[in-house]
Amino acid sequence: MLSHNTIKFINSLKIKKYRQEHQAFIVEGEKMVTELLNSKLEIKAIYALEEWVLANPVAPGRSGNRFEIVTEKELGRISDLATPNKALAVAGIPISGDIHDLKINDLILVLDGIRDPGNMGTIIRTADWFGIRNVVCSMDCVDLYNPKVIQATMGSFARVEVTYIDLTNWLKSLPREIPVYGALLNGQNIYAKKFNKPGILIIGNESKGISPEIIPCVTDPVFIPPQIPEGSGTYRAESLNASIANAIICYEIRKQLKENKF
Amino acid sequence: MLSHNTIKFINSLKIKKYRQEHQAFIVEGEKMVTELLNSKLEIKAIYALEEWVLANPVAPGRSGNRFEIVTEKELGRISDLATPNKALAVAGIPISGDIHDLKINDLILVLDGIRDPGNMGTIIRTADWFGIRNVVCSMDCVDLYNPKVIQATMGSFARVEVTYIDLTNWLKSLPREIPVYGALLNGQNIYAKKFNKPGILIIGNESKGISPEIIPCVTDPVFIPPQIPEGSGTYRAESLNASIANAIICYEIRKQLKENKF
Repeated sequence: MLSHNTIKFINSLKIKKYRQEHQAFIVEGEKMVTELLNSKLEIKAIYALEEWVLANPVAPGRSGNRFEIVTEKELGRISDLATPNKALAVAGIPISGDIHDLKINDLILVLDGIRDPGNMGTIIRTADWFGIRNVVCSMDCVDLYNPKVIQATMGSFARVEVTYIDLTNWLKSLPREIPVYGALLNGQNIYAKKFNKPGILIIGNESKGISPEIIPCVTDPVFIPPQIPEGSGTYRAESLNASIANAIICYEIRKQLKENKF
Repeated sequence: MLSHNTIKFINSLKIKKYRQEHQAFIVEGEKMVTELLNSKLEIKAIYALEEWVLANPVAPGRSGNRFEIVTEKELGRISDLATPNKALAVAGIPISGDIHDLKINDLILVLDGIRDPGNMGTIIRTADWFGIRNVVCSMDCVDLYNPKVIQATMGSFARVEVTYIDLTNWLKSLPREIPVYGALLNGQNIYAKKFNKPGILIIGNESKGISPEIIPCVTDPVFIPPQIPEGSGTYRAESLNASIANAIICYEIRKQLKENKF
């Protein structure tokens, strides 16, 4: 049976302060915990229904010193989901590499002020799909280890390395020959844009876009033009969702880099 | 002051059954209600903070027979948002046109079993951005007028016509020369795919994809290939989010149709 202290500890991990204190985070649901089992991440504990354990016999050996079979009711007391789903694990936050060792020989994604957990998770998931291994975030982005972000990554949290830093200083320290692509309203039409070299793609905040102090670092501003039906005038969609803009630009860059044999 | 009956009525509109009974839905937040004011939709009522009304003097005249200035506390009692935002309106559900009158001379989006309100709203918003005027949904898609869908459309609900029908029968009744594009795992690589003609794009359910009975209607299956870093093998992202796949395919189709002067 889950102890009061265990329940209290797991629920504390829904808050960033305690995740940082314990260097641990929650991974929930059948599919997500299976992804975690296949990853190299440290698993500190697993709490799962008996049926899940029978289907995942490797789980107890992989979960460090804590493994517990729980009832649906117990799972509900530690879950962050509307419908708790078979298993919940506590994983260790991995130590990030030094950002200054990062080699920019492939596409790197930079997030400037992404606040919505769903967007953040979807962006990491999309980055993973397009083979992006590094995502660099401004300090005011939502925390990767927020349970809602982890959920929206659909397991990609375990494959993409996410680092939080002071963006301005880092971007200014980059060699000048590295292109810095950025989604900006006054950017070049993406339909005509040539992406010839791997570099950095910056996606800005959901409502404010890329911050004023970061804009000068963008060498190649890009814009996804709306298609305005005749007679609509100014009565049209104002913007694209940040995770959608990210996906379209990542797709186009990947397509062109592939054509250019990168 | 808001009457008990008004509060009860507005809260009932968070449930589909009552939205259908009253043919009405909720639109919330400063930006969204302003979008509603600019639309042709019927506005049945507006409840707003005094500061919002001062900034939107046309609002009282546009809101039919009900207009009320409310306090923040009152707004909180009718709002569906975590942080209620200045104004809430009740709008009339518009009468949809007959699907059989729909001319397929431009790109039309078809949604087969989209269940997540955030995905649904984001898909409508993206369709609007790419100038798609008609979205046709299977009966098991989440309701457009669900407050969370409306919120995620960011106002696009007022510009895109969304119709719910029995997809299989309708798709089977279409002229053979209309291409039916569909996101499918065994589809043609989108990097090489030619989209020469306007037609229909089908996006399937978040976990199950396009339903088995709809698949035979797809004439042009399309696949967005993952980029797999060396040595990753099968340990990679399993899929893209449905609203992301939709955006990438809409983008590519629009781009090619534009090049082909459609």
